[in-house]
Amino acid sequence: MKKIAVVLSGCGYLDGSEIYEATFTLLALDEAEAMVQCFAPDILQMHVINHLNGDVMPEQRNVLVEAARLTRGAISPLSQAGAAQFDGLIIPGGYGAAKNLSNFATAGSAMQLQPNVLAFAQAMHQAGKPIGLVCIAPAMAPRIADAGVRYTIGNDPQTAAAIDAMGGKHVDCAVTDCVIDHERKIVSTPAYMYPARLSEARAGIQKLVQAVLKMA
Amino acid sequence: MKKIAVVLSGCGYLDGSEIYEATFTLLALDEAEAMVQCFAPDILQMHVINHLNGDVMPEQRNVLVEAARLTRGAISPLSQAGAAQFDGLIIPGGYGAAKNLSNFATAGSAMQLQPNVLAFAQAMHQAGKPIGLVCIAPAMAPRIADAGVRYTIGNDPQTAAAIDAMGGKHVDCAVTDCVIDHERKIVSTPAYMYPARLSEARAGIQKLVQAVLKMA
Repeated sequence: MKKIAVVLSGCGYLDGSEIYEATFTLLALDEAEAMVQCFAPDILQMHVINHLNGDVMPEQRNVLVEAARLTRGAISPLSQAGAAQFDGLIIPGGYGAAKNLSNFATAGSAMQLQPNVLAFAQAMHQAGKPIGLVCIAPAMAPRIADAGVRYTIGNDPQTAAAIDAMGGKHVDCAVTDCVIDHERKIVSTPAYMYPARLSEARAGIQKLVQAVLKMA
Repeated sequence: MKKIAVVLSGCGYLDGSEIYEATFTLLALDEAEAMVQCFAPDILQMHVINHLNGDVMPEQRNVLVEAARLTRGAISPLSQAGAAQFDGLIIPGGYGAAKNLSNFATAGSAMQLQPNVLAFAQAMHQAGKPIGLVCIAPAMAPRIADAGVRYTIGNDPQTAAAIDAMGGKHVDCAVTDCVIDHERKIVSTPAYMYPARLSEARAGIQKLVQAVLKMA
């Protein structure tokens, strides 16, 4: 039985993990009989967004505590994740991947990964274990793998240019499909980088999960 | 094309809508090519629960604003929902159904429905339109339909007794199945009334959605 770590970034696509992407990731892992353990960094969110009107709310929320909503409480601080325990890693998207797990949303090509994310993802990669990145999470691929890493964020040239400037090689991809860098074991799918239907995001994520499990 | 209203109660199973149940409801509706509009009452949550440790948090959150996380912003105040616009109604579970949409969590058999929920659900029922209730949401069935309404909340005798005391007729049901009261057009499925796997909750909810659409 394959054991997969899923790293979340909050709960809600504007300031945390995209909820459908996280759910479809966990559903596909369950359907494939994988063992799953969820993690999130124990840090404050960059900010809190009112998802009804887009305004920044005058409050603070913790990434780990909010991500626990997505996992019915079954989640641990990312600092506790060890690469030796897992066969693969998947990071769903949502702006949380670009605001809490990294600062891509504000720093663009000068982005840095949150220290726990960097340590765990690089350890997994260096151990030869596959990593699945959904939606905007592939922005982290050049900071995890070496230059030339192939990835997709759908077909958004401006965002792809910023990631390619860090060493990535963007590949256009439909929402229902995924891109596999077999050499580096990095899998990515666009999901809500498109104005997707739920069933479309589900299809692409299901393929990503199957590709990660196959390489795990 | 059938048009279905989905009523949410927040975002997170301990104080709002159960996230997987809401997502699987919306996924099954999308797969069936139904049109969907989401609603939530514009009221404060009963309370906010830290989903990591179960503690009540010293803050307030609005049901509509938090539910908007589950719908990527596409949601309207429940006061704006009119029965004439819709062919059916589905209410996912989570404690929010028993804390925000009703007070079943605290009042038991003396429960009352939140006024917007009561008005819309009764209007739909009286217009002969099907209603799907997931997880603990079937506790509202006796307040929507007449005495004798058949429903399921899985196989929890104590909770079923409290709902039967209001006029319901509980039917035991597996997590992967649903119970249909054809006469009253009330469909229910247990979902996370059991310690379910995601794929099991998904299967039961898919059946519920198909049953609602068939009667719509």
